[in-house]
Amino acid sequence: MEANQDYTEISSLGEFGLIDRLTKDIALTNSSSLKGVGDDAAVMEYHDTEVLVTTDLLLEGIHFDLTYVPLRHLGYKSAVVNFSDIYAMNGTPRQITVSLGVSKRFAVEHMDALYDGIRKACDVYGVDLVGGDTTSSRQGLVISITCIGDAPKDKIVYRDGAKDTDLICVSGDLGAAYMGLQLLEREKVASAGQKDFVPDFGGKEYLIERQLKPEARKDIIKELAEAGIKPTAMMDISDGLSSELMHICRQSHTGCRVYEDRIPIDYQTAVMAEELGMNLVTAALNGGEDYELLFTVPLSMHEAVSKLPGIKVIGHITKADLGCAMVTRDGTEIPLKAQGWNPLAQKD
Amino acid sequence: MEANQDYTEISSLGEFGLIDRLTKDIALTNSSSLKGVGDDAAVMEYHDTEVLVTTDLLLEGIHFDLTYVPLRHLGYKSAVVNFSDIYAMNGTPRQITVSLGVSKRFAVEHMDALYDGIRKACDVYGVDLVGGDTTSSRQGLVISITCIGDAPKDKIVYRDGAKDTDLICVSGDLGAAYMGLQLLEREKVASAGQKDFVPDFGGKEYLIERQLKPEARKDIIKELAEAGIKPTAMMDISDGLSSELMHICRQSHTGCRVYEDRIPIDYQTAVMAEELGMNLVTAALNGGEDYELLFTVPLSMHEAVSKLPGIKVIGHITKADLGCAMVTRDGTEIPLKAQGWNPLAQKD
Repeated sequence: MEANQDYTEISSLGEFGLIDRLTKDIALTNSSSLKGVGDDAAVMEYHDTEVLVTTDLLLEGIHFDLTYVPLRHLGYKSAVVNFSDIYAMNGTPRQITVSLGVSKRFAVEHMDALYDGIRKACDVYGVDLVGGDTTSSRQGLVISITCIGDAPKDKIVYRDGAKDTDLICVSGDLGAAYMGLQLLEREKVASAGQKDFVPDFGGKEYLIERQLKPEARKDIIKELAEAGIKPTAMMDISDGLSSELMHICRQSHTGCRVYEDRIPIDYQTAVMAEELGMNLVTAALNGGEDYELLFTVPLSMHEAVSKLPGIKVIGHITKADLGCAMVTRDGTEIPLKAQGWNPLAQKD
Repeated sequence: MEANQDYTEISSLGEFGLIDRLTKDIALTNSSSLKGVGDDAAVMEYHDTEVLVTTDLLLEGIHFDLTYVPLRHLGYKSAVVNFSDIYAMNGTPRQITVSLGVSKRFAVEHMDALYDGIRKACDVYGVDLVGGDTTSSRQGLVISITCIGDAPKDKIVYRDGAKDTDLICVSGDLGAAYMGLQLLEREKVASAGQKDFVPDFGGKEYLIERQLKPEARKDIIKELAEAGIKPTAMMDISDGLSSELMHICRQSHTGCRVYEDRIPIDYQTAVMAEELGMNLVTAALNGGEDYELLFTVPLSMHEAVSKLPGIKVIGHITKADLGCAMVTRDGTEIPLKAQGWNPLAQKD
């Protein structure tokens, strides 16, 4: 974040002035949005579909570091991670509410940038911003976004529907967002105290983009629908493949086997892991923030799902008593551990 | 908040362990709640009514002071202030999501107490807890609650429907929560550094209760419905009567007159204002956190609304060019100012 020069103090606008400025030309584009910002509550209509609600709380110093995260990107990502949860139900995000806690080092222009990112995400994904709350904060920036979406009842996919012999599929590739974070942290350390430091991201742009500007897999949901495939279980990968797979297995009362050599990894991720001396598979299993979709389909859909671009079959569901394990390249079974990014277990 | 002795560290449970503990025997009681905690999103069904969504962000050091606010009460209040927004739309709160940011000085037992309060509020108001997010925080406690409610389309009351000659009504009495806060702050100062300090709240229990354990006016919404009265405009009083009235007038393109001698004030509020040398009417107009309902009804309903217990007619709506003013006991008109509690304009 840039220094606070020639900027407008938020206190000069006050809460309602700031809200007016940030929300003044927001239009409602979804037919389900009846009333947006400006009353005690937003009003929506969902007479033919079910309503999906998800929420994420992002705190400065825990979830983001403004040393290297531009506010516009932060706004975009904060919205997108919520959309991702709605897609993970096989639904469509329709509305968000945005609550912000803002400390005094932020100026009106900083909020403009954050909101630009949020609005951009809304534009890209066709979501309406319908409400929120804005307040001051004693420490740092607090972002709480709630997303409302919808889906026909018979299309909703839960986490608990995986069955023995189902195929385990993931979209995209894994571990890149985590490697992007390592890279940003490395350059932050390298830049400490240096004016005009130019970080070196050459050849690693994909990792940076995956960390700073993730996308939700709307395209995969569309692709599955067009192929007539309804997953038996699905969730998005925010805490790492290993942790999410264990959620699905626990809730579905199953076990699983995933194959090390099937886990999709981009070459930039591999190069970066090599450079940092990190275990590549560990990063892909536990890195988190990929926002890819993890889902299971019946074995009979093997051919149909294998044909779809951007989707990879990485293993299969087993009976519960077999537990959850990864099968390495040499055939060894290693039990999966949920050592994904867990902000409540952090020691520092 | 008590000191951290013999308590369980949250990190010993981790995020999912804590969520499991806090939500383990939460039942869904509303027919609109199809799926609660445990998936990427909660699922609800609102085929016959409109969906209302409101959200509030509460930050330690800004909205509450744990020196004198018990966590159980804080949980209760955090939920109730959201219910109040749904009632202010003439709706019924049905579900909430609860996001918490928790710093290391909080133990599992503190979260139990906070959740006890939230669950108690849910029980009292018939609301289901269906989801949320839990994370660590570097500083202090962050509470973000989103409430989902519903109302038939033709029953929803907005802020922009007030018309010239409409009567302005409020429920309950005003200024008590603000006086309760002053009292708690006074006793906090008095207790500084003293062990075993016993605060003196004798004869002022009502003020303390209004501040620490406000209720949402579900009863008034029911009363109005039973009397066949649909307000033309309504909102709840969270920032102070003056500020809220100006919202209604601005959005309805009207002015208003309220009468000083009609503003309902409890005698404990009056005694406390006297004791503190504060202007009583200023406190009642700008104090905030009353969570009473402010609404307007057509003049023709004067008799019907006057008969209802707990509701007082305090003035009337005028044409916009007359502005917003309070008429004092001696007939002087004083323009209303929105000097309610505005956390973004605070200087300290």
